[in-house]
Amino acid sequence: MFEKVALVGIGLIGSSLARAIRQNHLAGHVAISTRSPETLKRAEQLGLGDSYTTDAAEAVRDADLVIVSVPVGASEAVAKQIAPALKPGAILTDVGSTKLSVIAQMQPHVPAGVHFIPGHPLAGTEDSGPDSGFADLFRNRWCIFTPLPGTDPAALERLSEFWRRCGANIDTMDADHHDRTLAIVSHLPHIIAYNIVGTADDLQTVTKQEVIKYSASGFRDFTRLAASDPTMWRDVCLHNKDAILEMLARFSEDLASLQRAIRWGDGEKLFDLFTRTRAIRRSIIEAGQDIDAPNFGRQVAEQPAKP
Amino acid sequence: MFEKVALVGIGLIGSSLARAIRQNHLAGHVAISTRSPETLKRAEQLGLGDSYTTDAAEAVRDADLVIVSVPVGASEAVAKQIAPALKPGAILTDVGSTKLSVIAQMQPHVPAGVHFIPGHPLAGTEDSGPDSGFADLFRNRWCIFTPLPGTDPAALERLSEFWRRCGANIDTMDADHHDRTLAIVSHLPHIIAYNIVGTADDLQTVTKQEVIKYSASGFRDFTRLAASDPTMWRDVCLHNKDAILEMLARFSEDLASLQRAIRWGDGEKLFDLFTRTRAIRRSIIEAGQDIDAPNFGRQVAEQPAKP
Repeated sequence: MFEKVALVGIGLIGSSLARAIRQNHLAGHVAISTRSPETLKRAEQLGLGDSYTTDAAEAVRDADLVIVSVPVGASEAVAKQIAPALKPGAILTDVGSTKLSVIAQMQPHVPAGVHFIPGHPLAGTEDSGPDSGFADLFRNRWCIFTPLPGTDPAALERLSEFWRRCGANIDTMDADHHDRTLAIVSHLPHIIAYNIVGTADDLQTVTKQEVIKYSASGFRDFTRLAASDPTMWRDVCLHNKDAILEMLARFSEDLASLQRAIRWGDGEKLFDLFTRTRAIRRSIIEAGQDIDAPNFGRQVAEQPAKP
Repeated sequence: MFEKVALVGIGLIGSSLARAIRQNHLAGHVAISTRSPETLKRAEQLGLGDSYTTDAAEAVRDADLVIVSVPVGASEAVAKQIAPALKPGAILTDVGSTKLSVIAQMQPHVPAGVHFIPGHPLAGTEDSGPDSGFADLFRNRWCIFTPLPGTDPAALERLSEFWRRCGANIDTMDADHHDRTLAIVSHLPHIIAYNIVGTADDLQTVTKQEVIKYSASGFRDFTRLAASDPTMWRDVCLHNKDAILEMLARFSEDLASLQRAIRWGDGEKLFDLFTRTRAIRRSIIEAGQDIDAPNFGRQVAEQPAKP
């Protein structure tokens, strides 16, 4: 599909892209760039690409497609660095979890003649780094584009086809709507998970060892999201502030109301909420976005529980 | 191990016990009782026991072990009903998620000579009803007893051995500590999950269809707990009120502080919390309480995502 693809950033998403590109024969040459010499070396050991450099400008030179996969707070620095080296006619995209901020950081630096198409594949795991990627990460997941006014339809279609061949489904929407949507489906869940794990960690009446031992009764589900990459999530919080604060306000308002129902023994209200929420899981399974098996189909841990 | 075991209630836990008893040859006769004729019929179709009745008193007659597996709010009614029929020397236990309340509801009705030992196996899935049980549910999970003063050590050991043969590990603690511990490891996570799914369901700027489509970016994890049995969880909220309200207050306090860090752009504070929470997941996996695979080892959904 492309003669040369440059991957700037080679963490979970970048390294999954590298593997998907190879598996689906989507590029003649994959150039890999990352700031950290250790990470770059690891990518080379894994054989993820065809050339390796810590200089992002060198990686993007002559590339037909440039994919920036870095924490969103690093977007402007990367854009500044690569802008002079971008080839006219190249497609420049990103994978950041917030779009208004990434656009504000990158767009001013994009040279005329380069097609900048902001994107966000909704895929990931709690792991990070070049070892954690896998070629199937994007299969059955959505990739959202938030094209700017005047985007070349042919470039958008070419990029869409690239992502489809990586296994993804394509949606487009405006950046503002993307940021609100992700605030509720992704950012709030992660923040809540981080928060509850922090609360449990701070308790003194219940020991940390007890929290760990008895975590299978619910708590462990939250620890997965709360094990996600700290740099990435710090940047998401700082760069989608308004939408996140709005969702947090709604969540807290609803929680106060639920707390009041518990305090005053309003069983009917509790039962109504707990019934209503059940239907959503069914819809998610029907939409192919989660597995239809109890406990996420987890296998019972092989090792015996330790006291 | 026992000549006759009576199971009062045949939902997820009761029917898993029935299957575990059969698989491990733990009883000569299993008597099954539930209030609902439909559920009882289903249990009979599934061949879960040896006798079936909607009359709990009839089921417990001559039983050496009686296990009450009903929503905690029904504990007193069941205790009243079965008390006159309990055999002297029998062991009476339960599986309720709150212990102070269950003890207060049941103990006054237990006849002298019957060994009442409150219990709670920390095991379950988001499913409910007799079809949802399976024999391995308790494997590698903890079963907590909260024995009353003066409990016969031989009866406690016999009940412990029964649960060990069902695959569980045994712990004992006082009922008050149990209720606080479960409030943080189980009750708060469920309440928070119900709440966030409710918040998302109520949004108007983001459609329900979008929440479902894009749920794999974090939200879907919460929908599993929020699909749990509404009656059971209403009763837990009503019967462990004090401990739950205490944990909710701590959670909300921490969330307010996190929200403030987001509003004021305190990246260092965010990064510190997000780093600290990562370690807990590792400990849970090392303790054999969760699977060591990204995304809970979920298989990618087989069916294609629907637009």
